[in-house]
Amino acid sequence: MSLELTILGSSSALPTSERYPTAQVLNLLERFFLIDCGEGTQIQIRRNKIGFGKIKNIFISHLHGDHFYGLIGLISTFNLLGINHDLHIYSPSQIKDILQPQIDFLKAGLQFKIFFHPLNFKKPQLIFEDKKTEAYSFPLRHSINCCGFLFREKPREANIRKECIDQFQIPIDKIKEIKQGADFTTSNGDSIPNHQLTIPPPSPRSFAFCSDTAFHPPVAEFIQGVDLLYHEATFTEELRSWADKTLHSTAADAAKIARMAGAGKLVIGHFSSRYDDLAPFLKEARAIFPNTEAAHDGETYSIEQQ
Amino acid sequence: MSLELTILGSSSALPTSERYPTAQVLNLLERFFLIDCGEGTQIQIRRNKIGFGKIKNIFISHLHGDHFYGLIGLISTFNLLGINHDLHIYSPSQIKDILQPQIDFLKAGLQFKIFFHPLNFKKPQLIFEDKKTEAYSFPLRHSINCCGFLFREKPREANIRKECIDQFQIPIDKIKEIKQGADFTTSNGDSIPNHQLTIPPPSPRSFAFCSDTAFHPPVAEFIQGVDLLYHEATFTEELRSWADKTLHSTAADAAKIARMAGAGKLVIGHFSSRYDDLAPFLKEARAIFPNTEAAHDGETYSIEQQ
Repeated sequence: MSLELTILGSSSALPTSERYPTAQVLNLLERFFLIDCGEGTQIQIRRNKIGFGKIKNIFISHLHGDHFYGLIGLISTFNLLGINHDLHIYSPSQIKDILQPQIDFLKAGLQFKIFFHPLNFKKPQLIFEDKKTEAYSFPLRHSINCCGFLFREKPREANIRKECIDQFQIPIDKIKEIKQGADFTTSNGDSIPNHQLTIPPPSPRSFAFCSDTAFHPPVAEFIQGVDLLYHEATFTEELRSWADKTLHSTAADAAKIARMAGAGKLVIGHFSSRYDDLAPFLKEARAIFPNTEAAHDGETYSIEQQ
Repeated sequence: MSLELTILGSSSALPTSERYPTAQVLNLLERFFLIDCGEGTQIQIRRNKIGFGKIKNIFISHLHGDHFYGLIGLISTFNLLGINHDLHIYSPSQIKDILQPQIDFLKAGLQFKIFFHPLNFKKPQLIFEDKKTEAYSFPLRHSINCCGFLFREKPREANIRKECIDQFQIPIDKIKEIKQGADFTTSNGDSIPNHQLTIPPPSPRSFAFCSDTAFHPPVAEFIQGVDLLYHEATFTEELRSWADKTLHSTAADAAKIARMAGAGKLVIGHFSSRYDDLAPFLKEARAIFPNTEAAHDGETYSIEQQ
């Protein structure tokens, strides 16, 4: 039962020879959510041996090129590979105007349907759900409209303790409501509290993606209790004025959001190309939020089922 | 005095984990010509330590995505780096309609001018020249309009033999015409033939780029005597029917063009992603044209001054 985040790109606007622009894949219970899609994402997907055919939902935070220039190449590759399932893109609405002239040039037309889902930049919104997972967008604070994304497992039903079925002679038609939290009254009229009858389900796990953004406390409130947080840290505090000017975060900003959100683990990324050494980022962030890692392209971060 | 071809990408439509889509840089006498610009080209330029600021002319053979999807990322990076010289793009005319909606989204607008030069798909055409070099486009045969490119040094003047200036008392105002081929008549009325007075200039070197194309003999005629030829070889003869169907070449086709053109050296590339091993390509091509190499990303091929 996976929650695995694979970093495909961890640079900011200028890619380096080591770091691709922003892209990552979240494997949440075998749903493969692609989050941002900078130039070269399809190459990184291939290198990290993620099946193209598994990607059905793509989330684009904002329309700066380092977060979406890889989209047309990926769509073209899907087409060439004969992938024919629907593709859903959650993005600022203008993406369609940018992509359409390029899609019109694809050999032999598009072999599948693309559904564009425009993001809401005013307030958090449920943008995706299926039986076991859900995804929300929420506003960030950047120089253009930009959203973060929160992905989480839906709460599961408790498991019934098998020995209780015999012991209390529970009929089959009662099992569903007991799994959902009901107590049970035996034929003798004894009431058996639910916690004696069930094994609690694992806690639903969650992941939040915050890039690009200035320090923005409402984020911490919305993602409260998140297990894994990716938050951009384009600069260290030494370049505070640059962070303020460009509406980006420092490593300290990212760590403060993680602490305020009560996050389990923080991964920072979107590093400015001026930095070769990430040690100052980690030092700065860990002083505030010890469980911090610096993103590396190709690295996977997992949250185990509790 | 350079003629150096650096391969940035040697895959065909689908990039692999080892091969980027088509792009290469020709350094011809310190002019850096970028030829095609597949996704990830800017990353490969950086890896190969080619200065972004040196690239002022970009040649796009055709509008299949694997030959131009890296263009918008490169333009965006030029902009972020503060490059402010003009950029010339030689390409099918529709490139402008594809790029403009993306350029309109660049932060703070474009800081330099882009000049679009539409290609002619009916006949060869001089598309670029400066004092020492020139470039021609010529039609290839592919599923959409597609051009190859021929780059060459302009012929240089001969050097005058310094000892002759004293020996025959050549006045300064005669030197220019002697360098251009004139004989010289001494004050005694003796005619000294030009070849006694001059050292011949080095032969002008040339490079031709042919991708994507089916086997197309008129190409060989146009690039006759080329020193270095890059020719696509998407398949081996085993997949002859695929080559015919998709209007691509086999390794044998590429070698035949090299032989017909009397080329000095052949580099083949644009390999289909279905091949891991390139040995069969080399075997097939070398049987026809022995001086053949298989392109590798990051490899540089040089032609020395003769």
